[in-house]
Amino acid sequence: MNSIAPGGTIGIFGGGQLGRMTALAAARLGYRCHIFCPEAESPAGEVSATATVADYGDAAALDAFAASIDVATFEFENVPYEAVARVAGKVPVRPGWEALRTSQDRAVEKHFLNGIGLATPSWTEVRSAADLRRAPCPGILKTAKLGYDGKGQLRLDEGFDAEAAWSVFGAERGVAEALVDFSVEVSAIAARGPDGSVAVFDVAQNDHCDGILRRTTVPAPVPTSLEAEAQMWATRAAEALDLVGLLAVEFFVTRDGTLLANEIAPRPHNSGHWTQDACAVDQFEQFVRAVTGLPLADPDRHSDVEMVNLLGPDAHAWPDLLAEPGARLHLYGKREVRPGRKMGHVNRLSPKTR
Amino acid sequence: MNSIAPGGTIGIFGGGQLGRMTALAAARLGYRCHIFCPEAESPAGEVSATATVADYGDAAALDAFAASIDVATFEFENVPYEAVARVAGKVPVRPGWEALRTSQDRAVEKHFLNGIGLATPSWTEVRSAADLRRAPCPGILKTAKLGYDGKGQLRLDEGFDAEAAWSVFGAERGVAEALVDFSVEVSAIAARGPDGSVAVFDVAQNDHCDGILRRTTVPAPVPTSLEAEAQMWATRAAEALDLVGLLAVEFFVTRDGTLLANEIAPRPHNSGHWTQDACAVDQFEQFVRAVTGLPLADPDRHSDVEMVNLLGPDAHAWPDLLAEPGARLHLYGKREVRPGRKMGHVNRLSPKTR
Repeated sequence: MNSIAPGGTIGIFGGGQLGRMTALAAARLGYRCHIFCPEAESPAGEVSATATVADYGDAAALDAFAASIDVATFEFENVPYEAVARVAGKVPVRPGWEALRTSQDRAVEKHFLNGIGLATPSWTEVRSAADLRRAPCPGILKTAKLGYDGKGQLRLDEGFDAEAAWSVFGAERGVAEALVDFSVEVSAIAARGPDGSVAVFDVAQNDHCDGILRRTTVPAPVPTSLEAEAQMWATRAAEALDLVGLLAVEFFVTRDGTLLANEIAPRPHNSGHWTQDACAVDQFEQFVRAVTGLPLADPDRHSDVEMVNLLGPDAHAWPDLLAEPGARLHLYGKREVRPGRKMGHVNRLSPKTR
Repeated sequence: MNSIAPGGTIGIFGGGQLGRMTALAAARLGYRCHIFCPEAESPAGEVSATATVADYGDAAALDAFAASIDVATFEFENVPYEAVARVAGKVPVRPGWEALRTSQDRAVEKHFLNGIGLATPSWTEVRSAADLRRAPCPGILKTAKLGYDGKGQLRLDEGFDAEAAWSVFGAERGVAEALVDFSVEVSAIAARGPDGSVAVFDVAQNDHCDGILRRTTVPAPVPTSLEAEAQMWATRAAEALDLVGLLAVEFFVTRDGTLLANEIAPRPHNSGHWTQDACAVDQFEQFVRAVTGLPLADPDRHSDVEMVNLLGPDAHAWPDLLAEPGARLHLYGKREVRPGRKMGHVNRLSPKTR
């Protein structure tokens, strides 16, 4: 059966804010959610009908999880293969392993992107100091696996010492990428259903700092033709992965107006949080529709919008944000405020200009 | 302390769809919810961090509930006094007993409404067949307590047999009201914070059938002056009850354009579900803001809207409703479809006309 009716149960690997907002969207449509994550009192578990607190390698817990759900999905892509395979034997897993595997490894990801004809910054796989000597410079060395939000990254400046850098880096395998002199960063988020239908949200401009997204602005200050190109690539990548769910593609826009893909994520994405208040149906409901096989919604945007992440103590500004006209506050219910931790975000709406 | 910061826990008596939608709104602002209700697997419990399944008379469960929350509120008004009093000794209860007590008994309610100068259909309290002989006719006899959605009501037509009617009625005490030849029914929902600030949503027109709300339309087809009058009465009633939370007031509009109050409810109200998709901040978030002492939001409406309840098998139309442009579907996750049971609702948006 391709479609799971409201009343069914969606299993979600991961208990963070993306799972939380997915669970809230699912609840609105009458679905139950079952969260599987190692952390007790997770943001997602606290708004879901059921939460299993277990390691991703716990076979008995995975079997019980699979037996209680109608479909499984993910709020983060670094779920171990064994967990996915074990659950996939019992219920549909959306997106499937191909999409996860591709986004779990930067080298596989870049091979995939280049393979479908999408340009990336020049890059090379690095397994030794010798490899590192051939890295593009100035560049950035990233771990091939499990890096996110700027963690596990090393800047490669002119005249860098390959031996020392490799020893500091520590990981077994990395990807070295050329630093790009971009004008802006943008992202496009495509939803794709089990029937192959696709809907893409408007392209967003993203500002990062220390590798963490700070601000998203929609519409992005790029030509319409470039927006369409970014949306086309997001669609094409989702199709090439035969992905069911959401695919976010991040791009650099070079000074001469070329798109270079930075990375992909097969799940709801921080750069799509603006959809919660500027679209009739947001990325989270669209994600739920895709993985349950409901018809995708019109991704139309009704307002211009700026999304600002509330990192660590930024969240203490909630009284001002609540009182600000046109601002919509979202908090994730995290108990501990830590520097740089994503505590919530605010969407600021303004009349649509284009 | 008057204000409860995000991260705090809101205790909610009752586990139905009003509690569910309140819990979802609370989660968006980073609050935890703790549901207290006798039913296992309640719509509200399934989206809340904690659910206590216990009788409202269970003192130990009430004490544990009170110890785990920062404020208590209600998704229905028929909570027993003992439960409210027990919890009120430990945490703020919003709204307080005065508002609950008034809305729990139709005679007390009508005395209150008339007492603040708000007209009602002519009515009389009925404790015997003799009382019933003095009832307005044509009229309707309602139980004084615990009636809702048209349950416990008896029509009094010309020449009715008071003895027989009283014996069929069965309840100890009732309120007989004159049937009103109204042109439309409308409602106004006011939010009031602990600081006395008030915000009132736009007035809605309501269509009932067999005592159950079927459809709400906003704007209501009444003069602006009448809307303002309804909003003024909702504000005045909330102030007179010193209510913190939401107060819904239902009115008949007579053919000569007079407002007659029908009933009040000190909680989110079915006739306010349209706010979920036609306002930046809906009745549920406004309710959360009021009971936690956050600043109330602007109750401004951005679209015209029609809300239609999905009763029993109506909910099976979800595939069509999901595919309908401008329609926003809300389902409550109830497992069993029963005739007349509120399973969900749909909000249909259109451009704002006034």
